[in-house]
Amino acid sequence: MFGKVVIYGVGLMGGSLGLALHSRGLAESVWGMGRNYERLKEACRQGIVTHCTIDRAEAMENADIVVVCVPVNLIPETVADLATLAPATALITDVGSTKAGVVAQIDQLLPENAPAFIGSHPMCGSEQTGFSAATADLYQDATVVVTPNSTSHNDAVTRVSQLWTSVGGNVLLLSPDEHDSLAARTSHLPRTIATALCHALEREMNAESRDLMVSTGFLGASRTALGDTENWTHILLSNADHVLDALGDLQGALNSLHHFLAGGNSEGLRHWLMEGAEIRKRLADSVPIARRG
Amino acid sequence: MFGKVVIYGVGLMGGSLGLALHSRGLAESVWGMGRNYERLKEACRQGIVTHCTIDRAEAMENADIVVVCVPVNLIPETVADLATLAPATALITDVGSTKAGVVAQIDQLLPENAPAFIGSHPMCGSEQTGFSAATADLYQDATVVVTPNSTSHNDAVTRVSQLWTSVGGNVLLLSPDEHDSLAARTSHLPRTIATALCHALEREMNAESRDLMVSTGFLGASRTALGDTENWTHILLSNADHVLDALGDLQGALNSLHHFLAGGNSEGLRHWLMEGAEIRKRLADSVPIARRG
Repeated sequence: MFGKVVIYGVGLMGGSLGLALHSRGLAESVWGMGRNYERLKEACRQGIVTHCTIDRAEAMENADIVVVCVPVNLIPETVADLATLAPATALITDVGSTKAGVVAQIDQLLPENAPAFIGSHPMCGSEQTGFSAATADLYQDATVVVTPNSTSHNDAVTRVSQLWTSVGGNVLLLSPDEHDSLAARTSHLPRTIATALCHALEREMNAESRDLMVSTGFLGASRTALGDTENWTHILLSNADHVLDALGDLQGALNSLHHFLAGGNSEGLRHWLMEGAEIRKRLADSVPIARRG
Repeated sequence: MFGKVVIYGVGLMGGSLGLALHSRGLAESVWGMGRNYERLKEACRQGIVTHCTIDRAEAMENADIVVVCVPVNLIPETVADLATLAPATALITDVGSTKAGVVAQIDQLLPENAPAFIGSHPMCGSEQTGFSAATADLYQDATVVVTPNSTSHNDAVTRVSQLWTSVGGNVLLLSPDEHDSLAARTSHLPRTIATALCHALEREMNAESRDLMVSTGFLGASRTALGDTENWTHILLSNADHVLDALGDLQGALNSLHHFLAGGNSEGLRHWLMEGAEIRKRLADSVPIARRG
């Protein structure tokens, strides 16, 4: 289905893609590329990729598809660098969590006859990092946003869509701006709330009993606070305006709650909780990755 | 270990307790009591309880331990009613999510020679309801708060502690007020945030793409929004002051985030995320129910 697929950055996302492609026999070869040769060799030994190298030129030689899985602040320069070494027929994509800034910067950096770049963002993952957490079904039933812009060619969009569909993903085409606005609510907001819950817990001074009383609900809601803080610093700053908008909407919801609690308004509170339950039930019933369980 | 144990309200919490006691052979008999005889018979057939009845007098005859698993607003009158029918040697407890109001009301309602009541709150559960979701290991490694007050006898505290320890729980003794203050942060706050996240999502008008972009992180953080809205209305209102305090602390954390995002302060944001990750990691490493995974 694909020729030589090169994954730059074999962590959870890149490793799971490699494993999915390799285990399903979807590519002639799956190359892992990065800076730590010993770790890449280990990924090779574990069957996550079929080849590995730290030599960019070797990796780009005859590459069919290149998937850049590095922190979001490093994506533009990495793509620009690889584009000078890859064949003009190659397709380059990424898995970055924000898109408008990344796509605009790459548009400026790439010369006219460079390989095509189309941005991607798979809406899956976990707080775990590294290829030891990789699974062949990470992308199964996950929505993968693909973000062409005005200069993107249709055949490049089709090829990148085929890549994600082949590993089980459902492709959603959005403009980079639409993506960032929606991702602020569906991904970046819960990530920041997870951290805020941990800070709110810490303000309670009775440390020993407090920690012991952490419920399964707290653990579930705060799980993503464990995620890579360096990468998330860049993600949130590169989408600051939309995240602030989303925080404002959350604040509006919390203001309603405050009003009902302070006023002892059981009817208002019941309605507020029921509306939330209905929204969450709709998601559980309709979103493929939620139905997977 | 125990004689006749009676569970009033055979749902997720009561059913899991019955299953744990019955499957481990910890009680001479485990009685399910409630209002719907057909459902109780089904719980009997599934081995969740050994006997069932809708007759309170039959249930209370020779009862050793009575566990009231009804919504928090119904606990005081239920306990007062059962106390008139149970032997003076019986011990009554509950699984309610707030304790100060419940314990104070029961103190006023029970006559001097009534069976002992000691409040309990197991810090486990899920958004699921009904005994079909019951598991014998729900209480394994969970903290169970037991809330004696100034009138509680030591032997009653010991017996209720033995009940929870026998099914795998770790007992934490707190005053009813301490419990409510801490539960606001460790349980009630994440429950309300789950609902607020759903409301914030809904304010984004691009409904179709929005729902498809819901990430695994969003689903995990909002899971408890599915929980029983009627029961949670009473839980939150009966602990309104502490929940408002906890919301204030969360607001403080979100104000910091707002400040860092609006000012493009990467150092501050990185530090804020790292502190949250360290708190969450400490919980993952130290809280028994988190280590269970």
